[in-house]
Amino acid sequence: MVREGKALLQLREGVFYNPYMVVNRDLSLLVMLLLGDDIVVCDAMGASGVRSIRALLELPNVAKVLYNDADPSAIESFRQNAQLNQIDMSRVEIHCKDASLLLREIRNCHYVDIDPYGSPIPFLESSLFPVKRGGVLAVTATDTSVLSGTYPHTCLRRYASRPLLKAEFYHEVGLRILIKKVVEEGAKHDYAFIPIFSYSYRHHMRVFFKKDIGAKRTDQVVQQLGYILYCENCLYRESSFLENIRKVCPVCGSKILWSGPLWLGPLWNRDLVEDMWKNRGAILISEETNRLLKRIREEANHQSIGFYTMSSIGRALKVSNLPPMVKFLRKLEGVRTHISHEGFRTLLPHVEVLKRIHELLR
Amino acid sequence: MVREGKALLQLREGVFYNPYMVVNRDLSLLVMLLLGDDIVVCDAMGASGVRSIRALLELPNVAKVLYNDADPSAIESFRQNAQLNQIDMSRVEIHCKDASLLLREIRNCHYVDIDPYGSPIPFLESSLFPVKRGGVLAVTATDTSVLSGTYPHTCLRRYASRPLLKAEFYHEVGLRILIKKVVEEGAKHDYAFIPIFSYSYRHHMRVFFKKDIGAKRTDQVVQQLGYILYCENCLYRESSFLENIRKVCPVCGSKILWSGPLWLGPLWNRDLVEDMWKNRGAILISEETNRLLKRIREEANHQSIGFYTMSSIGRALKVSNLPPMVKFLRKLEGVRTHISHEGFRTLLPHVEVLKRIHELLR
Repeated sequence: MVREGKALLQLREGVFYNPYMVVNRDLSLLVMLLLGDDIVVCDAMGASGVRSIRALLELPNVAKVLYNDADPSAIESFRQNAQLNQIDMSRVEIHCKDASLLLREIRNCHYVDIDPYGSPIPFLESSLFPVKRGGVLAVTATDTSVLSGTYPHTCLRRYASRPLLKAEFYHEVGLRILIKKVVEEGAKHDYAFIPIFSYSYRHHMRVFFKKDIGAKRTDQVVQQLGYILYCENCLYRESSFLENIRKVCPVCGSKILWSGPLWLGPLWNRDLVEDMWKNRGAILISEETNRLLKRIREEANHQSIGFYTMSSIGRALKVSNLPPMVKFLRKLEGVRTHISHEGFRTLLPHVEVLKRIHELLR
Repeated sequence: MVREGKALLQLREGVFYNPYMVVNRDLSLLVMLLLGDDIVVCDAMGASGVRSIRALLELPNVAKVLYNDADPSAIESFRQNAQLNQIDMSRVEIHCKDASLLLREIRNCHYVDIDPYGSPIPFLESSLFPVKRGGVLAVTATDTSVLSGTYPHTCLRRYASRPLLKAEFYHEVGLRILIKKVVEEGAKHDYAFIPIFSYSYRHHMRVFFKKDIGAKRTDQVVQQLGYILYCENCLYRESSFLENIRKVCPVCGSKILWSGPLWLGPLWNRDLVEDMWKNRGAILISEETNRLLKRIREEANHQSIGFYTMSSIGRALKVSNLPPMVKFLRKLEGVRTHISHEGFRTLLPHVEVLKRIHELLR
């Protein structure tokens, strides 16, 4: 037996339960909570059903949950756990299908969640259709090593983008590539999928998108796709469009690396993050989720493209004994990032960053 | 009543029959004919059923046709015409579904055809799955003005590529963008879709792809995606990859235009084209198809990226009275292209082309 939020779960043999994924569910619930009254939720890869059950137990605004899993034994597990938690089954619709088929058959959901093992790619295009205009699509990726650059060929095949393992913010690059892919899939159908909340945590990446419809709105989203240029030598970074890709670093003259196409826009909608923060008491979120959300709340006010880490600074400046991170934060007007415990964001231009670091080290 | 190939067709009110599309069907049949024995064909947007009926009537190697149309009245029309042509209905499987759903449910077809009104985009990803390894996917696009550059924003949204209306070979650019999209959709799933026969004819573009499976094979296909650089002033053209995109024309110094990402590989498999040519007598192909195939047969031996037209040369060189085209063909070792009646391909480098044109005009 496991307790998560208000739900009590009987775990079956062969049903995977990852305690770190509680962050994923907590944040899903917080987003759902803010989507208005009488919402319809689609839990397309429901597995044990913990997400569905928690939504039904903890959220007063959920009218109906469409639970789906292709595996009949997952359905059985969901039924048992729903009974255990005294769920009113008139609020539930159960499907047992390949998710990519189901998602093409249903429409008008306020919230659609795809949370597959590995890459979301096989389900991505199908997941665009059931989301209502103004509704939210949540996408999990656990192929993070592909997105972050360990397998660049696979990233190019799967996401049609080049990652950037050499940058200290390679996980952020992965997140931005994942966003690009969803934006691009949506754009094919004149859907604007706008990222409103993103994070990279342990072995998964996750992005929530708000759906809008129409060519004009979609064009505005597509215009925020581009490239990141990066210098391994001096840590220079820059966002760019194809016509402006340079070959050498404008700061130190080294060969420049590039990554993309990827999302250059904001990773968070600040108002949403504030609302999630304010409402976090309405559901039982874990300590871990609280910590993550707190950090993202700060980050959302400093939406830089890329961040610095203490070790990348040490490496670039060839200094082994750096002052403590708090001094860097103060000097560089920085905030910590949730992505790396030794990373921070600043909105200062790179040359200014270098100047102030040198002052700090003097 | 209309006769096409060996089929006699009763046209219903509301069932569209375009006589120019006979080229599309003739070539489909020629490709099917070369796919071996006992093949299964999926006609995913069957409409009147003329393609299915002709395949069943004219091709000895077709074991079964899966005919599909979402519109029940199209099914009715197909049934009537099949009866009229005395088709053995045990060789037919009829479906009445949204094609993008059906295509995700079936597997192991030797030949899959998607021939929608407008853009193939809504059906493209779904169409990848039913094709067997070694089988063929045929894709029609009639949103040719989007692919060719009249609506660049729409092209960017729909195909994630920038077209090149300013080049005299803008239709070829469109064809290459269409190919890129199919290659990219396939690559997401580790499928290699290799173009084997392509053409642009009146209001439609059409590409046949052979499907292979696996990361390595797919990487080889993806590596053939890139950009075309073009100079409006002197007609300079070059294929390029992202890191080598230049800003000015290396010949005349004008601002360079770019298009892509798009397919830079061959548009035709020469052996296939030869086989189609040799076997053209096995089915009743139209005069129009014969003419098109003849020209493509020449073109397949001169697979340049882009071509020249008499009017683009006249414009660039500011000469209004050019010698006849045959003189250009001889001087530039060129062959005519099927895409433009006043266009020709040459494998000579652009600077050599300019030099020889000047000699010709001297």
